[in-house]
Amino acid sequence: MPEPFGFDSYRHFQPLQYHLYGSLAPSRKGLAPDERTSHDLFMADDLREQLTKKQEAVLQTLQNSNLPTTLHSYHSLVPLDLQLERSTRVFGYQTYAYKATSKHDGNKYCLRRVEGFRLQSEASITLVQKWRKVRCASVVEVREAFTSKAFTGDSIVFVYAYHPLSSTLYEKHFRQRKPCPETVLWSYLSQLYNALRAIHACGLACRLLDLTKILVTEKNRIRINCCGMLDVLQYDPYADIKYLQAMDLTLAAALVLGLALNDPEVWPDAQFNFDLTTRGYSSQLNDFMHLVLEDADNGCSLSLDAVLGHLGSASLESMDAALSYNDTLESELATATENGRLVRLLCKFGFINERPEFEHDPAWSETGDRYLLKLFRDYVFHQVNERGQPVLDLGHVLACLNKLDAGIEERVMLISRDETSSIVASYRELRQLAESAFNELRRRS
Amino acid sequence: MPEPFGFDSYRHFQPLQYHLYGSLAPSRKGLAPDERTSHDLFMADDLREQLTKKQEAVLQTLQNSNLPTTLHSYHSLVPLDLQLERSTRVFGYQTYAYKATSKHDGNKYCLRRVEGFRLQSEASITLVQKWRKVRCASVVEVREAFTSKAFTGDSIVFVYAYHPLSSTLYEKHFRQRKPCPETVLWSYLSQLYNALRAIHACGLACRLLDLTKILVTEKNRIRINCCGMLDVLQYDPYADIKYLQAMDLTLAAALVLGLALNDPEVWPDAQFNFDLTTRGYSSQLNDFMHLVLEDADNGCSLSLDAVLGHLGSASLESMDAALSYNDTLESELATATENGRLVRLLCKFGFINERPEFEHDPAWSETGDRYLLKLFRDYVFHQVNERGQPVLDLGHVLACLNKLDAGIEERVMLISRDETSSIVASYRELRQLAESAFNELRRRS
Repeated sequence: MPEPFGFDSYRHFQPLQYHLYGSLAPSRKGLAPDERTSHDLFMADDLREQLTKKQEAVLQTLQNSNLPTTLHSYHSLVPLDLQLERSTRVFGYQTYAYKATSKHDGNKYCLRRVEGFRLQSEASITLVQKWRKVRCASVVEVREAFTSKAFTGDSIVFVYAYHPLSSTLYEKHFRQRKPCPETVLWSYLSQLYNALRAIHACGLACRLLDLTKILVTEKNRIRINCCGMLDVLQYDPYADIKYLQAMDLTLAAALVLGLALNDPEVWPDAQFNFDLTTRGYSSQLNDFMHLVLEDADNGCSLSLDAVLGHLGSASLESMDAALSYNDTLESELATATENGRLVRLLCKFGFINERPEFEHDPAWSETGDRYLLKLFRDYVFHQVNERGQPVLDLGHVLACLNKLDAGIEERVMLISRDETSSIVASYRELRQLAESAFNELRRRS
Repeated sequence: MPEPFGFDSYRHFQPLQYHLYGSLAPSRKGLAPDERTSHDLFMADDLREQLTKKQEAVLQTLQNSNLPTTLHSYHSLVPLDLQLERSTRVFGYQTYAYKATSKHDGNKYCLRRVEGFRLQSEASITLVQKWRKVRCASVVEVREAFTSKAFTGDSIVFVYAYHPLSSTLYEKHFRQRKPCPETVLWSYLSQLYNALRAIHACGLACRLLDLTKILVTEKNRIRINCCGMLDVLQYDPYADIKYLQAMDLTLAAALVLGLALNDPEVWPDAQFNFDLTTRGYSSQLNDFMHLVLEDADNGCSLSLDAVLGHLGSASLESMDAALSYNDTLESELATATENGRLVRLLCKFGFINERPEFEHDPAWSETGDRYLLKLFRDYVFHQVNERGQPVLDLGHVLACLNKLDAGIEERVMLISRDETSSIVASYRELRQLAESAFNELRRRS
């Protein structure tokens, strides 16, 4: 029977005999071999560009600013909102957003400062502690709040996770008034109710569902921002959390209705005089909107679970999209796993080889230990074929470096430049030589 | 008012003045600066290990096998199921799974061969074309099916996407009989019904929901495998798709019930004599199971949408987990974006510098063009401080290489090794020199 003999024969292999550029996810592009390039082995260009831009935003600094150099335990403030007109519509105060670096962990955070607010009750600011417990992929993480006099008058500052290059639902959908596809609306509904589920489970209410306070961080990925601010700014020790939670359910639907009708102010004026089917949306979406918004008029009898039940397959579709994106990201990540290690190894060799200080060092002369490293460098990079032509084989380079990094017992024959002598050394020995050469450099530095 | 003057002053910057190692996602670890290491800047070790193992599995080959060297348009077959006993329980035939490489796109696929099956009807194998249209993150992608005589007798081979190092639900939960947490059960339910949603939308029925035919590819991530096989092996042109789809809903619940009760054979024997609450599960889960399984007894009146409605918040929780994992992966990916580019650049320099052939080449002598590249290498790697001690600054190396790669106009002063002469060159000029040196090598090779 044509079955393999010796199942174990291929289960033992030397580590790292190759550069691990196997692609994990099955490619859906279906390109022929001659249509593919070496770039297929590296990260997709658009994803890399997007990540690079985000990292530039993270690292961006501001010279000569008038901002305080430190604020509480944060430093290096960079303003995030660049428009000069400031609306007091949402909070009743002027607010300012900054990117700042924490001196505790070195990470970047978003600081939102409310100008001219004097804290009346210590109890209100402790509510922020409860918000810290909300862990949800659709809520911008709340870190802390503190008061400050570093600016004109009194300020209170709320600290949130920083999402570089994010925009808001308002900027995305109302700058250019394009109709929003139905799948996107369902995805928004799923994410908003996902956020409310997590918030309500912590005994809190969102209270604020405003198009300008919902961040869009990736394609169709939204997160509720500015959580906890109303709890402090409009502190009410007798607030009816149950009622506010029921209102949240309505506000989320009203917000998405505004997107569907291309009018952020549509609710509560429009009430139930809308018919989404005339705009090309399904009756399912129309029914959902009527159900949730009419319930608000009838005393909010719908529970969150009931609303989630009506979301049904929409939430599964959002899950499916998220899982597919996981597969894509993991596959991209796989193309990049080995490079970090190789960069560090190549830099080490850069530091060691051909140093002017070593030119007259006997250890690097033709009788010394370190001479082997020089010959190994030639072996890796300066191969020539039988006709004396240079061989530029990236595969050979990566294989050699990986073997060196793993320090395996395989031996290589190194040949002197004048081709009169040869030395056999194992990768393990070469690795030790490189280590000790680098450590000696470190000791001297 | 302490606001920054000149908003534009920091919006123009030279490209790539730094290695872009800004971390994107807010760290939840909250470590103090002295608790962090340089490894925080690179990919997390466990994720890298997992990806590396997967890539090793992808690249694994088998020497001296008795398998055919090619099969249809696939080559390099490696058996995937290593147990010698073969159960015919599920399909009624002995089946074999292989990893194989497509000669069309070079990607790896999973080939599942059914031994001793002779195709009776061409119509049955065309059903596989319909399965190709199912695109779902919870279904293993179906690629094609073909018949073959390359093995003993007749075989039919089904080709699926290859998921390296995946196990099955049976292996995960019934090898060591640990109770399965409720959140995991809900997550499985969400993913199974997500798969059924996509399958039913294509006018197909899954028909096969077996613990050994559901792959576990990552932590708690499942995918229905072997789709379409029963459609061909038990071909029935008069199959009642509506009935089979209704059965799918029941089978999915029964499968998860088996996990909850730690007994894969529990249904249909147990019928409704189970009470999950006595095993520490919630009444919500118990009710869901009774609802779906009792409906099967009452003529399957439940629609898929109705079942999804009862899943409610469970599917949102699965979505939340998937979105959180997206954030983690994207943040990991951000640490790896720049390395691929730098590996290629460093290798280029390795090929160029200190080649023996160039030792007597006038272009590389102290009066030649290429001499600058040698001095630049010293500038990057062989810096010494004012006391002549080596400076091992990875930041300096990465900054120089990034500037070179971008070819910016910034100028560097390069000093000869004897410190008697100096030359000023821009990164743009140095980049052109490196390019032409490498191209000359390429031309000669």
